[in-house]
Amino acid sequence: MQYKKYGGTYAVRIDLNEEIMQSLKALCEQEDIHLAQVDAIGAANRAVIGVYDLEKQAYHREELSGFMEITSLAGNVTRMNGEAYLHLHGTLADQNHALHGGHIIEMTVGATCEMFVRTLPGEVTRARDQALGINLIAL
Amino acid sequence: MQYKKYGGTYAVRIDLNEEIMQSLKALCEQEDIHLAQVDAIGAANRAVIGVYDLEKQAYHREELSGFMEITSLAGNVTRMNGEAYLHLHGTLADQNHALHGGHIIEMTVGATCEMFVRTLPGEVTRARDQALGINLIAL
Amino acid sequence: MQYKKYGGTYAVRIDLNEEIMQSLKALCEQEDIHLAQVDAIGAANRAVIGVYDLEKQAYHREELSGFMEITSLAGNVTRMNGEAYLHLHGTLADQNHALHGGHIIEMTVGATCEMFVRTLPGEVTRARDQALGINLIAL
Repeated sequence: MQYKKYGGTYAVRIDLNEEIMQSLKALCEQEDIHLAQVDAIGAANRAVIGVYDLEKQAYHREELSGFMEITSLAGNVTRMNGEAYLHLHGTLADQNHALHGGHIIEMTVGATCEMFVRTLPGEVTRARDQALGINLIAL
Repeated sequence: MQYKKYGGTYAVRIDLNEEIMQSLKALCEQEDIHLAQVDAIGAANRAVIGVYDLEKQAYHREELSGFMEITSLAGNVTRMNGEAYLHLHGTLADQNHALHGGHIIEMTVGATCEMFVRTLPGEVTRARDQALGINLIAL
Repeated sequence: MQYKKYGGTYAVRIDLNEEIMQSLKALCEQEDIHLAQVDAIGAANRAVIGVYDLEKQAYHREELSGFMEITSLAGNVTRMNGEAYLHLHGTLADQNHALHGGHIIEMTVGATCEMFVRTLPGEVTRARDQALGINLIAL
């Protein structure tokens, strides 16, 4: 991973075989990022994505591999339990031009990933919502 | 809906069973937003999406229901006839990991929706284009 | 194409039958844009998209035509060889509500395209990476 800050926005390059969630978490820790909007494109060679089932309070998971384009990857950085908390959703196009998408659990870079992390002046925290089974932002 | 402003950007949380277009419209009215870029992720339990047919000047509509991830939701706020005008496109992943997408006519939150509304200093209005049958922004 | 700058962000309208990559390149030249984040929605009537095969170091291309919604179109403007270099990925919904997506090689507007080009204060250049066969950003 390489990154550089331009105004309040980090331009980030994540490299072949680096896992994107871990890389972004590391960036947030190194740079003490508390609130940010995230947008990226690139290529992946592996991903674990999920679609949430509110009744079962669990994600239907799908594991993907092979050369894929990251057609969109967007979300936010907030804080929970004193740590950076990442929430990203994305879509991927595979070699057969079929699309896959959902909540991003893991995604490994297949060639390069180009990300913008636009920091916002403030802090937003999350708290567990027992009825939904997810961590909601508190504003 | 909860929201808070950080710099020129609103972080917005829209809650279970709230309709996203109505919520965003209410935000724009309450906060007098005239021009903004919108980006969101989250989950939906119902959506009406459309793909425009330029010859028929009408949208092919598709109504979706069930637990879905909002993999992308992006667009803008401008002004028309003295009111906030919303234009959003999005993609959704269903429980079978199939993707759906188009122009967003309605979308109801399935768990939570996390949105950024980045205001821009100015105002952009729309005018009807008879040849296209849509409301174009005027710059 | 019409455009106007609000703060550091260009709001851009690209019109029926204009090619989006050419239009954005022209904007970057006219306005001397060196680094920017790009986001757009709209409609297309033709597109050439690709999914990169790292082994063959070539894109699997797919050519699309017909009325389509641009459900997402995102990426960046950097510099290479003294010129603006565009890197955009996108997803499209066709009249059957099927989704297509990948690296954008060409895309022609089908009704209107509404784009934000958010400039960042700085310059990022690209260099050829022989091992990957692509042009990486250098930070």
